[in-house]
Amino acid sequence: MKPAPGFEPVSSSLADSSHLPYGAVAEGMLLDRTLAAITAADPGALAAARDRQNRLSKPPGSLGFLEDVSVQLAGLAGVCPPPMPEPAAVAVFAADHGVHARGVSAWPQEVTAQMVDNFLGSGGAVNAFAAQTGAGVVVVDVGVVTPVPAGEGVRDGLLRRRVRGGTADMTLGPAMSRREAVRAMEVGIGVAGELVERGSRCLLTGDMGIANTTASAALTAAFTGADPDEVTGHGAGIDEPTRLRKAQVVREALHLHQPDPRDPIGVVSAVGGLEHAALAGFVLAAAAHRVPVILDGVIASSAALVAAALSPSALDACVAGHRSVEPGHAIALRHLRLHPLVDLGLRLGEGTGALLALPLIQAAVRALREMATFDSAGVSEKPA
Amino acid sequence: MKPAPGFEPVSSSLADSSHLPYGAVAEGMLLDRTLAAITAADPGALAAARDRQNRLSKPPGSLGFLEDVSVQLAGLAGVCPPPMPEPAAVAVFAADHGVHARGVSAWPQEVTAQMVDNFLGSGGAVNAFAAQTGAGVVVVDVGVVTPVPAGEGVRDGLLRRRVRGGTADMTLGPAMSRREAVRAMEVGIGVAGELVERGSRCLLTGDMGIANTTASAALTAAFTGADPDEVTGHGAGIDEPTRLRKAQVVREALHLHQPDPRDPIGVVSAVGGLEHAALAGFVLAAAAHRVPVILDGVIASSAALVAAALSPSALDACVAGHRSVEPGHAIALRHLRLHPLVDLGLRLGEGTGALLALPLIQAAVRALREMATFDSAGVSEKPA
Repeated sequence: MKPAPGFEPVSSSLADSSHLPYGAVAEGMLLDRTLAAITAADPGALAAARDRQNRLSKPPGSLGFLEDVSVQLAGLAGVCPPPMPEPAAVAVFAADHGVHARGVSAWPQEVTAQMVDNFLGSGGAVNAFAAQTGAGVVVVDVGVVTPVPAGEGVRDGLLRRRVRGGTADMTLGPAMSRREAVRAMEVGIGVAGELVERGSRCLLTGDMGIANTTASAALTAAFTGADPDEVTGHGAGIDEPTRLRKAQVVREALHLHQPDPRDPIGVVSAVGGLEHAALAGFVLAAAAHRVPVILDGVIASSAALVAAALSPSALDACVAGHRSVEPGHAIALRHLRLHPLVDLGLRLGEGTGALLALPLIQAAVRALREMATFDSAGVSEKPA
Repeated sequence: MKPAPGFEPVSSSLADSSHLPYGAVAEGMLLDRTLAAITAADPGALAAARDRQNRLSKPPGSLGFLEDVSVQLAGLAGVCPPPMPEPAAVAVFAADHGVHARGVSAWPQEVTAQMVDNFLGSGGAVNAFAAQTGAGVVVVDVGVVTPVPAGEGVRDGLLRRRVRGGTADMTLGPAMSRREAVRAMEVGIGVAGELVERGSRCLLTGDMGIANTTASAALTAAFTGADPDEVTGHGAGIDEPTRLRKAQVVREALHLHQPDPRDPIGVVSAVGGLEHAALAGFVLAAAAHRVPVILDGVIASSAALVAAALSPSALDACVAGHRSVEPGHAIALRHLRLHPLVDLGLRLGEGTGALLALPLIQAAVRALREMATFDSAGVSEKPA
């Protein structure tokens, strides 16, 4: 596995969250600071990028949605053309889910830890796609129940940032406490900050957690108002009777907690997952650092609902990598007004859909940076 | 501009088509040989790839259409896993169109040559996207009317393979003779053969030619039976009255020639373009060499209709890079039963849509080649 830039020699001081540069910050303060640092896109850079797109040696608008992406990234960076979104790094946040006990997944819970091990051995789809795009990978254990194989030592590319050993069953009580939710969010903020500090200029969301589409469905229903049945899909391969039970589990959890979308931390602690909270923090930190973040699938979009509820301007940093077949994903993307770049029937997670979008986003920015204009190329413009 | 592999030191012997390795072959024989060399996908490799996809450490089917692409490429290569489709090269076939005189485009005809010059100076979108993906670029003058700037000398990355100086107006007579159509097809076959010989393992179609969407519309209507109005779009930016006139021009041409889809060379000589004929040959040669060819937009899909009419098995080598906003593109893709990888509202051509798909196809193959299986990774499988 190619670790993300700067993570090649993983030292014990990095792997232990108590030694983070943010370790001295009191709980919640890092989140508050991050939220305070997020500002809206730069209108001057947006206008300059739109104008430049119209002068490039091509019919105006002929690069379609990629023109919009390049303009968005200029607004985020505050400069036109924006810097190339590279090097890139995908952070795979891994955690387990107490609601697994309700039979919502076809897979045993230990698969979360086994897949973390598989990623660290470069055997996952996320590794193959990252290798193809040149992106680095870090895996963040934010709450895997089964001990990740190979003991307690530091392993290349693995960050041990466990907040708790999986969530509790959301149908019996809150998945986690508010304090734990904030801690998980700050894990995500910290990982994003470290990646940016070490040179990453594009962040990608990844996730691993058996039963995490159940938490995603609950979050998506809570923030969008959609019915649990609409946002509950077949996840990693359950049959229709199991899907119906899963939707009923989501309905029970929402009935129990009555989550209020005006209290995003309350929602994610009641029905979310540790990786969802971490991903929400990761998205907020990307926005605060004015670095683009490519969202993967339904886990990322439900985490982005949390982030956007805390800070709507965080969406200026977000690009939807793809649209998966999970029905809640499309509903969340519509709510967030994000247009997905790739739509190929994927339903894997791990960051795979975000990684597929990375070269498209890089191509969009490169066109804005490198193409000749009509003037510079001596090409006749279309008569007005 | 990064020329395609092997084209870096463009010698005069390469730039002059009379010195092609195929130069000694009698007209039409190269096409016949190419058609004879095309065979169907290998069923054993297809089955082995499908089986391997189901054993990789991910829920079966969770990589969606990318799994199908990897299986297709295994069938094409005759081995599982297939070789990585790299290095890749895009060939931009440039030509002009006599039908331009009918006012079907908003752009002056000299823009074809100006854009060829722009590509050679690395100022085009095709150059930016190729640089992003590591693909090489060759530009093939198969019939540009205006002399390509910088005189008659050899220029890096430009292949002078002019069959005639643009087509004739298809509403007054055939766009070109059958003999010229075959010669243009053999230019495409020759370019594909040279690229493969010099190491390319993935070919991408590119095109440049003011008014070439008119020829594409006529070809698409001829092969699919669609009405000219359905397949005629706004091209590189005409207004609706011009589009209506363009559709009428297509209707006139079809009425004049009554092209018979059972005679593909007759169709392309009557209402096609030189770059369409060359691209049809390029697609056929890719299939004969069992190398994947990524189709760009509506020009490529209409050329693929010609190729598929001559040899249906040629489609086993084709991957549709994207779906453009040109209405004829979707109609041609449906007829060819090709599923596009990218759908982002592009309408530029040049090869841009094919280049966007390249890293997705490479990721698909890399996953099949490099991912661990459930067994090798020690990951528990879902109970059946």
